Amino acid sequence: MPSSSAARPHRLDVLVTIDENYALPFKVMACSIMANNPGARVTFRLLQGDGRSPGGVASLRAYCARIGAELVATRVDGRLLESAPTTKRYPVEMYFRLLAPFLIEDVDRLIYLDPDTLVINPLEPLARTRLAGQDCFAAACHTGVPEQIAKPINNVRLHTEGGYFNTGVILMDLPRARRVVRIGDISEYVSSLMRGTFLPDQDLFNALYGRHTHEVDDGLWNYDPRSYSQYLVISGGQRDFDWVAANTSVIHFCGSRKPWRSSARTRFEALYAHYMAIERRYERR
Amino acid sequence: MPSSSAARPHRLDVLVTIDENYALPFKVMACSIMANNPGARVTFRLLQGDGRSPGGVASLRAYCARIGAELVATRVDGRLLESAPTTKRYPVEMYFRLLAPFLIEDVDRLIYLDPDTLVINPLEPLARTRLAGQDCFAAACHTGVPEQIAKPINNVRLHTEGGYFNTGVILMDLPRARRVVRIGDISEYVSSLMRGTFLPDQDLFNALYGRHTHEVDDGLWNYDPRSYSQYLVISGGQRDFDWVAANTSVIHFCGSRKPWRSSARTRFEALYAHYMAIERRYERR
Repeated sequence: MPSSSAARPHRLDVLVTIDENYALPFKVMACSIMANNPGARVTFRLLQGDGRSPGGVASLRAYCARIGAELVATRVDGRLLESAPTTKRYPVEMYFRLLAPFLIEDVDRLIYLDPDTLVINPLEPLARTRLAGQDCFAAACHTGVPEQIAKPINNVRLHTEGGYFNTGVILMDLPRARRVVRIGDISEYVSSLMRGTFLPDQDLFNALYGRHTHEVDDGLWNYDPRSYSQYLVISGGQRDFDWVAANTSVIHFCGSRKPWRSSARTRFEALYAHYMAIERRYERR
Repeated sequence: MPSSSAARPHRLDVLVTIDENYALPFKVMACSIMANNPGARVTFRLLQGDGRSPGGVASLRAYCARIGAELVATRVDGRLLESAPTTKRYPVEMYFRLLAPFLIEDVDRLIYLDPDTLVINPLEPLARTRLAGQDCFAAACHTGVPEQIAKPINNVRLHTEGGYFNTGVILMDLPRARRVVRIGDISEYVSSLMRGTFLPDQDLFNALYGRHTHEVDDGLWNYDPRSYSQYLVISGGQRDFDWVAANTSVIHFCGSRKPWRSSARTRFEALYAHYMAIERRYERR
């Protein structure tokens, strides 16, 4: 869709920290952003580790150019987190998003997105979320039943009080975050995490920065399609599929069933399949 | 999605004959074309009757400009079909598509689309379909079971030999059609039709021009989502939803259940709901 004269021009900076294995879902997500953010000048900010192949980045940059976006890659010096223990399953890249305030200095606001997301409506309202007091992030807590059961456990486990934020979608206000985030805190916490947690990066975010995070509606900004029926019931029937199509901006396929590896069975996977087809159009022919 | 440098520039002329009641589905269809035809310079050619309000056309033209397309309206002189009997249910507009060869002279090839279609992949391959011999149109026959049962009946009823073409999607080669289509034939046939047929315009097309129509694959160009299971079975399991997402260009919601009046229950209606949301973004705010 060409940029419409009716769409207000604005910039949109999207943070990603993918490795080679997530090139395809990243491109699908990128296509979905371009199609659903008319008027946006989109820049993808990629934080990459020392080991990442420059060829892979060049190919992603070329792809972004073909869909009308820019990709700016920043190499992360491994020494920044040299005290952080890592494993194959939990590579150092996982923590990069939290270092963004120190690695990216030329923009004020970023939206971090996991690569297993699909953007079906504009992101601008999230980018403009008002943050008060000491808040420097905005994120959503999933409202499904498992999350509600886990909440008191997480509160004790992580010494938090509010909800447990899902870190697949995070608005970051970088100047505000620089006043709160400390690299030392991150690597220290990482050391303690390795004694066995389920989602170490998410735990870290909640334990260290949950109190600096403004909560946004997961139905709009971090919609878990596995919880469709629960959203529908909790909303008294309002949040049916049409509501999602008209209002939800980010669908987060956060389960183990990934839509780029499965055949489309649900209405949400149907949307994903459509954007996979769009993605293929922009592959180098 | 901005026009990509990788997309080959080409023109795409789409014929529509909607009245005021179909403004919304037309706009949804138009958005779906713009999103899925990168590189295309799209012109919608609207054939309008004497009675159509000029204000309505101006509003459609403004809408098309906002999505990056052009709309060219041609007023049809009612006297062209003055001998054609019409009723409220079968207004004269219904026949306009067949008059296109005489009303539009500045393009060679048009794709006629019913407004209850959604375009999810490029139309260019249809526009470039090779026509041989005396063929001047290309269209699809629906391959569902009801159509297969009706075929021999239609062949007798309409004195045709091949399949019964669905006229929701027609490629028209106008210079070739001018050698075949006669306005007198149309109005004469219309008179006989009114004695009671189910789809008078479709019958007319098949009876008069079926033999000048090149058959194309309905799974690609005129996909009836009610027949999903039949397409799947006939194709030996190949044409699942992912296949449709990757290959089908035109979904034709040709039943009485219209996706702009219903809540999205199926994967196909989910795609429609998504494009309805996109349509709303471009309404005058």
